[in-house]
Amino acid sequence: MARRAAFIAVGSELLRAERPETNSWVAARVLRGAGYLLTEKRIVEDTEDAVAMAVRDLLSRTELIILSGGLGPTADDVTREGVARALFRGLARHQPTGEAIAARYAARGRPMPEFAWRMADVVQGGELLPNPVGTAPGQWIEAAGCTLVLLPGVPSELEAMLTGLVAPRLGRGSGILTRALRLAGVYESLVEQRVMHLYDRFGRESVTILAARGQVTLLLLSEGPGAAGRLEEMDAAFAAAAGPDLYGRDDDSLPSVVLARLRQRGLRLAVAESCTGGLVASQLVSVPGASDVFLGGVVAYADDLKRALLGVPAELLAAHGAVSQPVAEAMAAGTSRLGAQCGLGITGVAGPTGGTPEKPVGTVHMAVATPAGVVHRQHLFPGDRQMVRELTAAFALDLLRRTLEEA
Amino acid sequence: MARRAAFIAVGSELLRAERPETNSWVAARVLRGAGYLLTEKRIVEDTEDAVAMAVRDLLSRTELIILSGGLGPTADDVTREGVARALFRGLARHQPTGEAIAARYAARGRPMPEFAWRMADVVQGGELLPNPVGTAPGQWIEAAGCTLVLLPGVPSELEAMLTGLVAPRLGRGSGILTRALRLAGVYESLVEQRVMHLYDRFGRESVTILAARGQVTLLLLSEGPGAAGRLEEMDAAFAAAAGPDLYGRDDDSLPSVVLARLRQRGLRLAVAESCTGGLVASQLVSVPGASDVFLGGVVAYADDLKRALLGVPAELLAAHGAVSQPVAEAMAAGTSRLGAQCGLGITGVAGPTGGTPEKPVGTVHMAVATPAGVVHRQHLFPGDRQMVRELTAAFALDLLRRTLEEA
Repeated sequence: MARRAAFIAVGSELLRAERPETNSWVAARVLRGAGYLLTEKRIVEDTEDAVAMAVRDLLSRTELIILSGGLGPTADDVTREGVARALFRGLARHQPTGEAIAARYAARGRPMPEFAWRMADVVQGGELLPNPVGTAPGQWIEAAGCTLVLLPGVPSELEAMLTGLVAPRLGRGSGILTRALRLAGVYESLVEQRVMHLYDRFGRESVTILAARGQVTLLLLSEGPGAAGRLEEMDAAFAAAAGPDLYGRDDDSLPSVVLARLRQRGLRLAVAESCTGGLVASQLVSVPGASDVFLGGVVAYADDLKRALLGVPAELLAAHGAVSQPVAEAMAAGTSRLGAQCGLGITGVAGPTGGTPEKPVGTVHMAVATPAGVVHRQHLFPGDRQMVRELTAAFALDLLRRTLEEA
Repeated sequence: MARRAAFIAVGSELLRAERPETNSWVAARVLRGAGYLLTEKRIVEDTEDAVAMAVRDLLSRTELIILSGGLGPTADDVTREGVARALFRGLARHQPTGEAIAARYAARGRPMPEFAWRMADVVQGGELLPNPVGTAPGQWIEAAGCTLVLLPGVPSELEAMLTGLVAPRLGRGSGILTRALRLAGVYESLVEQRVMHLYDRFGRESVTILAARGQVTLLLLSEGPGAAGRLEEMDAAFAAAAGPDLYGRDDDSLPSVVLARLRQRGLRLAVAESCTGGLVASQLVSVPGASDVFLGGVVAYADDLKRALLGVPAELLAAHGAVSQPVAEAMAAGTSRLGAQCGLGITGVAGPTGGTPEKPVGTVHMAVATPAGVVHRQHLFPGDRQMVRELTAAFALDLLRRTLEEA
């Protein structure tokens, strides 16, 4: 059985910010490798009280608590104090660490404020964890059958310490093996139907279906005796159920798989985007080293640009409208003007306005041109402007992938 | 004083997914308007036990608990049962609601499974909240001086019910007034230095600095007697400290402000992107109605495209390299070929490879061409490929904004 772990992010700003708290994502991943499942996440205010209450509540029912943030030198860095209070312990200053921190301040020509010495205060019975990337050290504390690990909130520091110091030390138990199967060009509900019959065989708890931005991930978990063999069995069974919608595993991304296929085929790609407005190009460029097979593209938002840069005939635009199969195909083919042997053309109505009874918001035409010919797909995507654009980008990259695999 | 609220997201998949939990963002916003501050967020597993323990722990120290998720018809929808257990109450079936749900199933030609009747089970003493968008109703329960609100996890349903049903009912107290000041072209640490002297005057708790993707937001909070007047005072003081880095307030975004300036000036924009690879175009297109002043652009990732589509002279590329001031300026000016009166050119080294001692990873040249002339900026951005690209996009849009304001 997996051991239970909890994650506490300390910081009032995290309660107000509309941005993801990602440290727990990294922690969940690293902990799985050491045999721990994250069973609860909390975000609490940066007060001693809030930290102490969270720790006390979790102490009796988890084997590991990771705290992130609140270890710096300022007045609202109170994680040390909160944890000490929860455990009814004091804090002891570790003089050599304090002096090392003072030396860092001195090296930057700044005097160390008195309260910054608190970074060297360690909960009694605990030990300091060196921070290889920043100033504030972490702490490792054993209490009441539970391990508490205090880490800085800066993502790069937290990740370095989790991976380099915490995981090796936790990793005495057997890890939970995971495999992510990546699917595209399909909706979550359909995937669920297709894999449901496998739940009985492998257990409902061993698979999580995650859907986001036009892609679906099957996260497979396996632990205990025979974990490795069972993971491969699960992989084979779920991959068979996924069929051609499966594009990769684990770190594969849709853009990275498309770029790899292009390399194999010796083709260079250019894209012609209307409603996605550069989203597909941007996702391709996000992959390091994309430049060897991705030339670039055109964001032909205005019809004039579709004509001038891609050579889409004015008659086609007039006869069928910009959002139509002939125009998508002409855009894909027009990328040959940019020196590409493989082209993607996208045109659609992202909304909120511009829809008509014949072409409602969400109507998208996409086409892929290769030396083997032109492939076209029409979609009617649900959701608002942002969702239509993200679904379009995912389905378009997936159409590229399928075409390059088959052609 | 603001009243304390907590948010509990129920769902094991939320503990495994590497994607943001956004329902709490919507809740925090809506609750502020009703005078509640979110002081804790939790994500718990979908077991009765986990839900019950979270509710019991929070009940005594918050005035409001919002729970999202776990109200559907499947076996792992256990929020109702968990809350009932936490409050030592039973569940009672509301027959008319059950029949209405059965009618929805029937309308779609499907029989209602027996366990789906659980959607009509209400915690004793509580009442059902109709769901205007979906099937599963919410619940409103008063217990031990605390209000518990159970809402579906589907974001559109949660938002509709929070805004339409929950906020009006909570809104008897005085709301917490908020104002977001939006800054760009500046780093968080510098903003902090500039506004620090205002903390004494307005209170450290009344302002939160949020930084993400090359932008900084100052979130101002004001409550109690004289809240409206004080908010305007704060706005004036912080805006003065922000100076020309302030580009807007509340719902303003950098792309929306740039598009508005273009409309005022009667100029049409095209962009020429290299390292950002369509990110700037995509952000502009994300604003509904962008097409009246945004023509589109070129993702000139390959040098051939810089020459062919933008007319960047081969000699410039040979003499200065693609990442250089002359090439950025030529790219910006080259957008006139696309029919634009305003052009943005971006070229840089996003990494992880491609850096040299003279042009290390993070080196970016950007230029804006308007009828008044060409403006150039050179940056050395920190971080990985993704961060360099996001900082570049934000600083480039901000350069456009400043140029359009001044020129």
